[in-house]
Amino acid sequence: MTATSRTNPSHRGRPTMLGQNQYGKAENRVVKITRDGDTHHIKDLNVSVALSGDMEDVHYSGSNANVLPTDTTKNTVYAFAKKYGIESAEQFGIHLARHFVDSQEPIHRARIRIEEYAWERIENSDSGSQFIGADEVKHSFVRQGQETRTAQITYDGERWEVFSGLKDLTVMNSTNSEFWGYVKDRYTTLKEAYDRILATEVTGVWRHNWTSDEDRMPNWERSYEQSRKHMLDAFAETYSLSLQQTLYQMGARVINSRSEIDEIRFSLPNKHHFLVDLEPFGMENETADGAVYFAADRPYGLIEATILRDGAEALIPVDLTNL
Amino acid sequence: MTATSRTNPSHRGRPTMLGQNQYGKAENRVVKITRDGDTHHIKDLNVSVALSGDMEDVHYSGSNANVLPTDTTKNTVYAFAKKYGIESAEQFGIHLARHFVDSQEPIHRARIRIEEYAWERIENSDSGSQFIGADEVKHSFVRQGQETRTAQITYDGERWEVFSGLKDLTVMNSTNSEFWGYVKDRYTTLKEAYDRILATEVTGVWRHNWTSDEDRMPNWERSYEQSRKHMLDAFAETYSLSLQQTLYQMGARVINSRSEIDEIRFSLPNKHHFLVDLEPFGMENETADGAVYFAADRPYGLIEATILRDGAEALIPVDLTNL
Amino acid sequence: MTATSRTNPSHRGRPTMLGQNQYGKAENRVVKITRDGDTHHIKDLNVSVALSGDMEDVHYSGSNANVLPTDTTKNTVYAFAKKYGIESAEQFGIHLARHFVDSQEPIHRARIRIEEYAWERIENSDSGSQFIGADEVKHSFVRQGQETRTAQITYDGERWEVFSGLKDLTVMNSTNSEFWGYVKDRYTTLKEAYDRILATEVTGVWRHNWTSDEDRMPNWERSYEQSRKHMLDAFAETYSLSLQQTLYQMGARVINSRSEIDEIRFSLPNKHHFLVDLEPFGMENETADGAVYFAADRPYGLIEATILRDGAEALIPVDLTNL
Amino acid sequence: MTATSRTNPSHRGRPTMLGQNQYGKAENRVVKITRDGDTHHIKDLNVSVALSGDMEDVHYSGSNANVLPTDTTKNTVYAFAKKYGIESAEQFGIHLARHFVDSQEPIHRARIRIEEYAWERIENSDSGSQFIGADEVKHSFVRQGQETRTAQITYDGERWEVFSGLKDLTVMNSTNSEFWGYVKDRYTTLKEAYDRILATEVTGVWRHNWTSDEDRMPNWERSYEQSRKHMLDAFAETYSLSLQQTLYQMGARVINSRSEIDEIRFSLPNKHHFLVDLEPFGMENETADGAVYFAADRPYGLIEATILRDGAEALIPVDLTNL
Repeated sequence: MTATSRTNPSHRGRPTMLGQNQYGKAENRVVKITRDGDTHHIKDLNVSVALSGDMEDVHYSGSNANVLPTDTTKNTVYAFAKKYGIESAEQFGIHLARHFVDSQEPIHRARIRIEEYAWERIENSDSGSQFIGADEVKHSFVRQGQETRTAQITYDGERWEVFSGLKDLTVMNSTNSEFWGYVKDRYTTLKEAYDRILATEVTGVWRHNWTSDEDRMPNWERSYEQSRKHMLDAFAETYSLSLQQTLYQMGARVINSRSEIDEIRFSLPNKHHFLVDLEPFGMENETADGAVYFAADRPYGLIEATILRDGAEALIPVDLTNL
Repeated sequence: MTATSRTNPSHRGRPTMLGQNQYGKAENRVVKITRDGDTHHIKDLNVSVALSGDMEDVHYSGSNANVLPTDTTKNTVYAFAKKYGIESAEQFGIHLARHFVDSQEPIHRARIRIEEYAWERIENSDSGSQFIGADEVKHSFVRQGQETRTAQITYDGERWEVFSGLKDLTVMNSTNSEFWGYVKDRYTTLKEAYDRILATEVTGVWRHNWTSDEDRMPNWERSYEQSRKHMLDAFAETYSLSLQQTLYQMGARVINSRSEIDEIRFSLPNKHHFLVDLEPFGMENETADGAVYFAADRPYGLIEATILRDGAEALIPVDLTNL
Repeated sequence: MTATSRTNPSHRGRPTMLGQNQYGKAENRVVKITRDGDTHHIKDLNVSVALSGDMEDVHYSGSNANVLPTDTTKNTVYAFAKKYGIESAEQFGIHLARHFVDSQEPIHRARIRIEEYAWERIENSDSGSQFIGADEVKHSFVRQGQETRTAQITYDGERWEVFSGLKDLTVMNSTNSEFWGYVKDRYTTLKEAYDRILATEVTGVWRHNWTSDEDRMPNWERSYEQSRKHMLDAFAETYSLSLQQTLYQMGARVINSRSEIDEIRFSLPNKHHFLVDLEPFGMENETADGAVYFAADRPYGLIEATILRDGAEALIPVDLTNL
Repeated sequence: MTATSRTNPSHRGRPTMLGQNQYGKAENRVVKITRDGDTHHIKDLNVSVALSGDMEDVHYSGSNANVLPTDTTKNTVYAFAKKYGIESAEQFGIHLARHFVDSQEPIHRARIRIEEYAWERIENSDSGSQFIGADEVKHSFVRQGQETRTAQITYDGERWEVFSGLKDLTVMNSTNSEFWGYVKDRYTTLKEAYDRILATEVTGVWRHNWTSDEDRMPNWERSYEQSRKHMLDAFAETYSLSLQQTLYQMGARVINSRSEIDEIRFSLPNKHHFLVDLEPFGMENETADGAVYFAADRPYGLIEATILRDGAEALIPVDLTNL
């Protein structure tokens, strides 16, 4: 992810050389059902594999002698879902990354990216349902549709790097947000605001400080659930003078509350809700009375920052979109 | 929506004539906040206006003498959100449709289409939060992200036609679905299935039998909530021999349970989950043990049907996508 | 496509009945390469099958005795691409529709929808290329990416209905467009415009008057190419007082120029390009001098109409999106 | 773009600190028409601004004293389109980046990202057109719809970094591609292929070695046009034993042919076209005869690599999606 070029010093006489490269099968959609008697559980993932290593030949001459086919990496995803089950996205990625690096000599590094889609049970609402009597339906689900959970697991044979995250989580405060006291230059026309809507679609990625098989692994499911809760709490509770301030509070709350996390980065579009000018129609539109807003698409403010535990190294890339 | 052509008999000598036509501003994104003391409420809509009437001249000669600008229809949406509030998508559409037809002589018919995005409150999880003490946050929301609710209100000055609906509601039964006993022709290779996943992304539209201001209007919010519940219950409780059977049960349950609804149509893609063949790797993958599936994108089965109250007229168009 | 309900009169005692229904495999992505010596040709289609007929049982009881599986319809698409080749989207759809209706007694009607993606050759630019010498590359293509061509073929065992069309064709006139003389009501704030940009993304569907195997079939490829050309010419050459006028000219030009086409419908979003107000920065922004515009996303005007050959029946549905 | 954290050493006692951060208005859609007599020209851009600098306060306390509003950056984009015109995306970005860094003391770095959409003229096909006689239409355009051109300009007050690129350029070789001789492990089932389709959707980013105002600036338009041509030529002319080999050839051809470019990175999804098995229907489907393929969506192989001029530093980030 960092732009470390892999030079090819022995490749003399050529005016070009190969830099960072990786390959694998992307977006393997795997669903695993677990049956616990009549009660079923779902794990629904989208898994992307990226492998790096001794890959000069395949680029220079087309020799595939070091290339495990992307099709094989796909097969491995499905076989491992059966072999190990899917305890969590992170744990599943760890199984896969370890396998590729440990079993293939030319592969020095594996990066597994995962999206997870959450499902919730359809609750049986009628106690006296004619169809199933007193029995509960335990195999019926509706997709939650809120955020997509993300994970990225990287392994080089020695050190683990685990990112967790989420995207597409849209949140709004309908008050307790202001924006004023900013720089005014000759191109500034914006009016200051003392009671505005603050809405954003959260993309966040956080880095766990677990890096070694020697250390105790975090509880990935609980860590995710708690991190998400702290973010939402901080968003709701911060009286905001800028989206940057809210962002920092969200990140600091996670770092302060979760000792397993050392770094977090957010990309927060400012989903503008503009007060509509109803004066031409002889109407007022005051926020205090409950106002009408135009929800704009583009352009949008985009606020991005990393928050770190003091002394921690910054390892999350600046551009989050792909994760 | 039905293909009724509007002929132009006085338009002699021309080899072409104008048929059905409509115009208006599409996708007006309106958000209305209502403040009830410290407790805020959101309505978040996407409103599209389509007007029809005496519009020959604007097509033949470009005369706009009968044309209320689409920009004006946009302004009206925002002004009405303030004037009437947004009690429900359906009620809001009724205000708009009535206005355009009653206030503009050349406009004979108005069709309002609405998408609604649901929000839920961010619950304050820590009773002893340092930021807000015992007070609860009542102005912070997270977008639900599950189905999008839809409505279409059409008015011709006399008669109302109100469709409600939803889209993007993804559901799954991980068992209690079979598929066998079908026709086999020379191009049939499919194996019969006795325990398969049944998953679909529900698009549904239902028609209320309320058509006149003289009659009592349904409670749109409760009607929606109950219709959705009946659909989900029927999906969960039906032991399915075909997606068509499940679809019919979903529709019949709504018609039988909600006297205000006479017709419903579904478009149900069969979101295929294929059992992965793990035999080449020496592994079994039996549904009874909890299996691994490949969730496919395209192609997909597409099952569409209308269910009617006995004797009711079919008025919902066959193609639902635009609603 | 029209909302003709299929009643079930023998289904007495039930409070609900089945209306229009159809099923099949949607979005079969089929690519056919034809080799003419070293010169290759591509046809790249997305084919959706929808079948109707005696389908009451599968809905009421789940009996699949009349159901040709959607998987079989998929297989048929691929087998027919080999058996018949793909001369044109329309001709390919005719082969498929005829097959399903003629070979399966319970199937009374087949509707085939097709999207076609165009490819053009990568021209060999260097005559003295070191790699291939004087030989030309004749098997390398770049996807055009402009409009998607569409077709819909419907057959009931006797009568053919063939729609052709396109979508996603974005066009712009940077002058020769005005908008004034419209209705002003209390919600009107729009200023009249005497020199504006007119831009739209064309969705169009046209109906051929060929309906019987007895009659001579149109040349589908030439008909498409010429219809597209007439549309673009009319768009470019019309001095426009309203998008409705431009739309009508586009349709009339096609009907007047192509005797095989009796009806055409357009859905034209008005892709607004707003003159930016640069006065606060002491700058003018006049159209006559070459202006700067903000290209808006939502909302947008949406203009839709059908143009018919005088006396022709209107058969194209009002909502085009699915075609 | 590289993950350089901006520490805050004076920020003692706090357990968290701010890392890399940036803000600005994203996706400003600006269209500039230039009139050359009756002949009009279009530049159609999507411009995103990201600024960095002394931004600790706005994150820690919400003070906006150093914050030029994102709304102002939007205004600047539109004002500069008028003031300077849009000669090229790169040149326009250079104007903007220089302005923000030079005019605002707290801003130390500006990154401008641009997407450009190409338009071509609608050719007047009828010499004897009744509408416009002998005059040519010179203000009518159709959007090309092929690749989107991209640019990223970064400036820190001293040094320039200019990336150019493209995305969504879909290409195919219908022969001259093989894949065999790869590693086989216990999860490998793929059959070797000696004549397959090779198709991909090119995302590419290349870095110009121009970094200083002292040096002569490249001709950005010609550089783009030629780089694109070399890429396509190399794609078409390479007899491919792996997509990696093709990728390398595409990159090396650009580096070898364009002295202003030192580094290029590609992200190439392998858009799989699978030979359909028609044997169950008694049909052959041999590539040599012109075969039928299933064009798959997911999963897909994903091949990514950087090619560098020998000795050049690798500065393009590994993840290209956002550029």
